[in-house]
Amino acid sequence: MATLTDIGVAAAINILSAFGFLLAFAILRLQPFNDRVYFPKWYLKGVRSSPLNSGTFIKKIVNLDFRSYLRFLDWMPAALKMPEPELIDHAGLDSAVYLRIYLLGLKVFLPITCLAFAVLVPVNWTNNTLELDASKSSKLVFSEIDKLSISNIPKGSNKFWTHLVMAYTFTFWTCYVLLREYKVIASMRLHFLASEKRRPDQFTVLVRNVPPDPDESMSELVEHFFLVNHPDNYLTHQVVYDANKLAKMVKKKKNMLNWLDFYQLKFERNSSTRPTCKIGFLGLFGKKVDAIEYYSTEIGKLSKEEVEERDRIQKDTKSIIPAAFVSFRTRWGTAVCAQTQQTRNPTIWLTEWSPEPRDVYWQNLAIPFVQQTVRRLIIAVAFFFLTFFFMIPIAFVQSLANLDGIEKAVPFLKHLIEKKFIKSFIQGFLPGIALKIFLIFLPSILMLMSKFEGSISLSSLERRAASKYYLFLLVNVFLGSIITGTAFQQLNTFIHQSVNQFPKTIGIAIPQKATFFITYVMVDGWAGVAGEILRLKPLIIYHIKNFFFVKTEKDREAAMDPGSIEFASSEPQIQLYFLLGLVYAVVTPFLLPYIIIFFGLAYLVFRHQIINVYNQEYESAASFWPNVHVRVITAMIIAQVLLLGLMSTKSAANSTPFLIALPVLTIWFHKFCKSRYESAFRKYPLQEAMMKDTLERAREPNLDLKGYLLNAYVNPVFKEVDDHDDVSAFDELEFEAVLVPTKRSSRKNTPVPSKYTSGSLSPLHDAAHEQQL
Amino acid sequence: MATLTDIGVAAAINILSAFGFLLAFAILRLQPFNDRVYFPKWYLKGVRSSPLNSGTFIKKIVNLDFRSYLRFLDWMPAALKMPEPELIDHAGLDSAVYLRIYLLGLKVFLPITCLAFAVLVPVNWTNNTLELDASKSSKLVFSEIDKLSISNIPKGSNKFWTHLVMAYTFTFWTCYVLLREYKVIASMRLHFLASEKRRPDQFTVLVRNVPPDPDESMSELVEHFFLVNHPDNYLTHQVVYDANKLAKMVKKKKNMLNWLDFYQLKFERNSSTRPTCKIGFLGLFGKKVDAIEYYSTEIGKLSKEEVEERDRIQKDTKSIIPAAFVSFRTRWGTAVCAQTQQTRNPTIWLTEWSPEPRDVYWQNLAIPFVQQTVRRLIIAVAFFFLTFFFMIPIAFVQSLANLDGIEKAVPFLKHLIEKKFIKSFIQGFLPGIALKIFLIFLPSILMLMSKFEGSISLSSLERRAASKYYLFLLVNVFLGSIITGTAFQQLNTFIHQSVNQFPKTIGIAIPQKATFFITYVMVDGWAGVAGEILRLKPLIIYHIKNFFFVKTEKDREAAMDPGSIEFASSEPQIQLYFLLGLVYAVVTPFLLPYIIIFFGLAYLVFRHQIINVYNQEYESAASFWPNVHVRVITAMIIAQVLLLGLMSTKSAANSTPFLIALPVLTIWFHKFCKSRYESAFRKYPLQEAMMKDTLERAREPNLDLKGYLLNAYVNPVFKEVDDHDDVSAFDELEFEAVLVPTKRSSRKNTPVPSKYTSGSLSPLHDAAHEQQL
Repeated sequence: MATLTDIGVAAAINILSAFGFLLAFAILRLQPFNDRVYFPKWYLKGVRSSPLNSGTFIKKIVNLDFRSYLRFLDWMPAALKMPEPELIDHAGLDSAVYLRIYLLGLKVFLPITCLAFAVLVPVNWTNNTLELDASKSSKLVFSEIDKLSISNIPKGSNKFWTHLVMAYTFTFWTCYVLLREYKVIASMRLHFLASEKRRPDQFTVLVRNVPPDPDESMSELVEHFFLVNHPDNYLTHQVVYDANKLAKMVKKKKNMLNWLDFYQLKFERNSSTRPTCKIGFLGLFGKKVDAIEYYSTEIGKLSKEEVEERDRIQKDTKSIIPAAFVSFRTRWGTAVCAQTQQTRNPTIWLTEWSPEPRDVYWQNLAIPFVQQTVRRLIIAVAFFFLTFFFMIPIAFVQSLANLDGIEKAVPFLKHLIEKKFIKSFIQGFLPGIALKIFLIFLPSILMLMSKFEGSISLSSLERRAASKYYLFLLVNVFLGSIITGTAFQQLNTFIHQSVNQFPKTIGIAIPQKATFFITYVMVDGWAGVAGEILRLKPLIIYHIKNFFFVKTEKDREAAMDPGSIEFASSEPQIQLYFLLGLVYAVVTPFLLPYIIIFFGLAYLVFRHQIINVYNQEYESAASFWPNVHVRVITAMIIAQVLLLGLMSTKSAANSTPFLIALPVLTIWFHKFCKSRYESAFRKYPLQEAMMKDTLERAREPNLDLKGYLLNAYVNPVFKEVDDHDDVSAFDELEFEAVLVPTKRSSRKNTPVPSKYTSGSLSPLHDAAHEQQL
Repeated sequence: MATLTDIGVAAAINILSAFGFLLAFAILRLQPFNDRVYFPKWYLKGVRSSPLNSGTFIKKIVNLDFRSYLRFLDWMPAALKMPEPELIDHAGLDSAVYLRIYLLGLKVFLPITCLAFAVLVPVNWTNNTLELDASKSSKLVFSEIDKLSISNIPKGSNKFWTHLVMAYTFTFWTCYVLLREYKVIASMRLHFLASEKRRPDQFTVLVRNVPPDPDESMSELVEHFFLVNHPDNYLTHQVVYDANKLAKMVKKKKNMLNWLDFYQLKFERNSSTRPTCKIGFLGLFGKKVDAIEYYSTEIGKLSKEEVEERDRIQKDTKSIIPAAFVSFRTRWGTAVCAQTQQTRNPTIWLTEWSPEPRDVYWQNLAIPFVQQTVRRLIIAVAFFFLTFFFMIPIAFVQSLANLDGIEKAVPFLKHLIEKKFIKSFIQGFLPGIALKIFLIFLPSILMLMSKFEGSISLSSLERRAASKYYLFLLVNVFLGSIITGTAFQQLNTFIHQSVNQFPKTIGIAIPQKATFFITYVMVDGWAGVAGEILRLKPLIIYHIKNFFFVKTEKDREAAMDPGSIEFASSEPQIQLYFLLGLVYAVVTPFLLPYIIIFFGLAYLVFRHQIINVYNQEYESAASFWPNVHVRVITAMIIAQVLLLGLMSTKSAANSTPFLIALPVLTIWFHKFCKSRYESAFRKYPLQEAMMKDTLERAREPNLDLKGYLLNAYVNPVFKEVDDHDDVSAFDELEFEAVLVPTKRSSRKNTPVPSKYTSGSLSPLHDAAHEQQL
């Protein structure tokens, strides 16, 4: 067990490294050279223009204005300055509400910490159980931290009533904050939806599993069905094409365009020799050809093929999948259709609110109903095995990746490996690396699993992946650290243990693990968050791209990778801190300040990133909040059950009945919140719809809604092909000049993703992007 | 442990007693005297008229036609003769589908029994494990039944693979039957709803929790809200009055009318002395008055008060509760309103399909949202304590109700009690009686709990009470018999036992308890069902009423108590047999034939009762089926887990992984069924609504829907007051002649409960009726 000094040293190291990251960021962000890495959001909004266009060459790259270095911590108050309504306007409701998760952490834990330090710490400190125990058996070592924890209270002491009262106080406070937060966010969401401008998804319903009809085409079938069943409301519809092949072609062409740019730039810089390349596997084998010529002709060919494929898809009835986007005259009619069942058979003609166009995950639209339930079963089983048995393949890889294994596999490296330095490096580093790689890829694996399940919007994909990741962290990080053993070993322990032993086993281990988790919070929380603001990976990639591929301002814009909040991986991590805080609030309050620092720092950093960097791919109007809420409730219940177990080992038996009431009340509180507020995130009330309709009719009596919705839900792949078609027709620069203004003002409320964004918003690009992670 | 002979004797006794009941029934039903007890359904339908009106006096009472006695078992084929569509027409879909639960039992268990006897019994029989064990320790006693069970297989034998394969076969067969049944019943329900004639509940939505408005009356508020938010569909609405006080008056008056009838009859029979009564407590104390005069004036007073109260309620705005029945022009509009959320706040303006008028539980319409969630929590906690601690108060009563206790309480009985016969009677009988009384009252207690929870229809009340009763039976009858101990002791055992010990503990006990459950099935199942057909209680009550109160044919009709299927108490009992059958199918197949006989006999008896006796109080179109389905699934999962536990004690470890897959697949099957079929019971598809609307518009273009719906949803208490009002105005006989024909044809499809039925259908009467039970 670590002493206070150990913790102090660890804290100092981590504070220093976090401070180092922050300092590096403060300096790097001032260089005009990095401007697009640290302020891409403003470029995308069209507010900021490249500093490279003005001033001397040096000034373009390095900031020589020393006064600005003096104000290098300015970003902190700047990040806090923007008021919330402006933030919602600037970055969307999703981002603003995401920040409120950190605020929620502060709101929950600041008062709890004060109270715990005012009440629990003195109560714990004024005992000498540990000293007595230590004097009895010399083996027992304890630290000052343990003296501050519940371990220091003698068995059966009446002082446990303090902890009991505190457990109640903390629960009620957390519930109160959660309730208020749920209420605020529900009203923020409703306000956001109510004040939103006209958007195509307000009028559109996604209908899936349209049953085939031998006599009618898909389009006629859909039209007739809705004309009959929603005669007063139906307006128009759009069929969905299976464009997966075309999407592949578009991706290939994009790749080739990059290479063409690369070779052209190479040729421009050194015009003496025309660049060549090999056309075989990975450009390593095969015939040598003139690179520019080769790629130009290839791209030309591909463009033609793309157009042919697009025309084929649009003509061939077989490429129409049994799903359609159906639009209605009014929001009222849309709300009605989206929230009711259409036919007797609940597996066909499934209607639901259509996600906004950017949010659609096109690949999954065609999955039939039965297949979807089978897929869910498969993924549920697979996820169970992933969570509990992931160590098995990793252990296998680790067993291969030892010295002997490598020597056998690649004998010619034997000489090199035998050197002492490299040997110790491999021995110390290699076993861990397999696990590390797995953990890095885990969010992507979980996202792939969620995609396989068949969700039809990116936002729901992220939510499902987040739930899975949370469970994984809960089992493997939280329980795994406490019981120390693989998840499977834990499972085995649990199955062979009595029910009331579970909370006891964990309850006893919990105070002992406090120091470990303090270190965890510092390394993963503090330094991790500080690292986030530095954006090391995007910084390097941007400069590489900038050097090799960028010819025009447009290319530079494309090289920028603003990224977005990775909800699927970062929200579960926040939840882990909630869990730690709630579990240790009564047991070892000394952990709480570390959590508060994490929440404060993370709030600051992410607020800065959201204002200046991230560019959300979609807007779901905070539809993830119920998930956040329920996970905090889960953490509360876990904390209560573990406290119950701990108390029962402390012979404080008469407090047990009082503690049992806590989880019951918490579950009831959850049910109450669910029935009271969840509907704001899942349903769209008819009154709201009617109000917006009436307002709109009064304001724009002659609106051409049909024209407005005409191309709202077209697979972005088609637009890309069309755009490339256009590009070849127009002069590129002119095209840029024409399109840019439209694009920038368009990002927020027109349905047509602009040319730039269509790239980063297409699900294909998104998938590729995720696989890169 | 019982031997085959013991079982044989028990079977003989039970078969004889069941046969005795059936014989008594066969004779009693042929007596014209009892005609109204055994064929009330036909009287209510107006098809059968009283045999008392024709023939000689003797013939009116006793059946002297000996030929009819020869055909005394005719009712059995007669009960089976009516085809299902006619049965639905005759008794409603609820009853027809209720019968299908018994059929489901036969369909599930007949093939399983055949297979088990063909495969498992020979496999079990051809071992001698028990004999070997018995020869080792003389203590172990085993019976022939155990030789047929899984206990007879030696540990670690490969023969367990047979049981494993059978467990899979049984699971798949049960799932297949369940799936087909769900499909059939869903389509029956949809067909029933589609072919139903016009009913007020098709056009009506119940809106609750209307927020108060200082400027508008409730009626205006409701009208404005729906005119704004459903402008094309809204037709009219009816406010709901708080008529609980009036209901009490009506009840009191009814009681007095009975007494008046009683004394008038007494006077008629003995006209020499006018009957007198005392007006004090229970008619035992107080002043002596002329009974007929007293009751006549009291009833006159009450009638006036009733009318005044009715007028006060209808004038006073304070007696309007914040709920209303809102009607729409079309079924489509109704479906839309019932299945969507109206406002931002999900706790106000709650809309749902209105139950049919007979089905409304008026008392609960005014419960606000938050109160409802609190009530649910209270009931959940109370139910938990009821299930696990119900033995405590009973034990307390038992400790009081011993000899010494009685002697102390009523010393003057001491002499009597000391007599040997009475002493032994009290000692043997008294302790059990407290438990028996509790068990008799249990369904009523659970119904009261459900009423407190705040459901607004009788059908949902019955469903909720049934769920509670099922849990109670599961814990206290099934587990209680296996572990032998109070539920609380079980709970204690479980908490202190390891998780994988649960199924083991029960698994080991299960084969040993087979004989107990065989006896249970015979006593509770066979004899109980045979007793049901005899209708002893209604028979006695009818004759008492007939003797004391009946003056006119109308009174005689009122004295008839057809009763109805007590879904809340009888369905959970059927489920217990499903559970027993599924649990023992693999373990001790010898139990299965007893279950099959139960299902067959019960099907026959209840089909007869439904055709000839029961008169359903409401029609919910089989909306209880999802509950039935999920409880059979629960039974399957329990059976699988227990088999897993049993197998693991049999050192058949390598079969465990195969058995774990079973519950997973079963849960997935449940999810699949739920998503595929449950919506037919919960939602009303718009296509169906539109079809019915279109048909109706074509058939009756000039329908006055508003007039049709005008008085559909009026609290039956008002009608009763109005009726009594009318009675005083008209000559009673004339009134009868006018109303009776209307009443009889009206029972099925007009909204206005007729005069007769309004009594038996009023929730108040119903509540009173249940409290009597």
